[in-house]
Amino acid sequence: MKKLSRRLFLGNSALLSVAGLLGLAPVAKAATQKPKGNFVHHVYFWLKNPESAADKAKLIEGLTNLKKGVKEIKLARIGVPATTNRDVIERGYAVSWLLFFDNLEEEEIYQKHPVHLKFVENYAHLWSKVIVYDSVDV
Amino acid sequence: MKKLSRRLFLGNSALLSVAGLLGLAPVAKAATQKPKGNFVHHVYFWLKNPESAADKAKLIEGLTNLKKGVKEIKLARIGVPATTNRDVIERGYAVSWLLFFDNLEEEEIYQKHPVHLKFVENYAHLWSKVIVYDSVDV
Repeated sequence: MKKLSRRLFLGNSALLSVAGLLGLAPVAKAATQKPKGNFVHHVYFWLKNPESAADKAKLIEGLTNLKKGVKEIKLARIGVPATTNRDVIERGYAVSWLLFFDNLEEEEIYQKHPVHLKFVENYAHLWSKVIVYDSVDV
Repeated sequence: MKKLSRRLFLGNSALLSVAGLLGLAPVAKAATQKPKGNFVHHVYFWLKNPESAADKAKLIEGLTNLKKGVKEIKLARIGVPATTNRDVIERGYAVSWLLFFDNLEEEEIYQKHPVHLKFVENYAHLWSKVIVYDSVDV
């Protein structure tokens, strides 16, 4: 025990060895690790009034609340089209809504979740079209 | 030192306290943390021969190598359509290729990266269409 505690203070490599023993990893590594779960749900929203900054802000506000309200969501990212512009790039949508779930079952819980249903009820009037891509990791 | 090493073996809460002191976090927490960076690049591939399992496997093999060859890629997920099936869900594509980058500049490095250009050269004959959605977090 005493030997192990001494190793704790030897430097980074010793720290990482101890972290390995404990099943821990540095926070900084999180970005390059594969998140848990295998279900990716990506929704693109087209607005009825694509020029309305107010409508876009309102939809983003709704999604921001939605992501806080459903614990099955393992990662959520709200985006807008980047400045990239090539023939193959779709830029007509207003908002991108990307979610990671552990599995299909948890995505189905999300679909029927009261917070999600309330979101659709309150914000669906803003969009003219949605396209959804659901994929599972290979 | 002796006291600290004893705490290491007391149980989970003690482990987490020590982890906190060391600036470490459990691997299991990674999924709920927001990955570094704000650029999401999502590509959907339609195959020339959508019924060919061999062509799909070949494309997946190419993407698997591609993700190992470009250090700017902060997260890569290769997927296939899930079993979900509603009007708004696009299911015609064969493979989903989702990448996270720190920013637009790193995505541009990826676009011009020799490993990426080689991937396009070697595998483009397999697909009939790609749709790309580039988004940045709000």
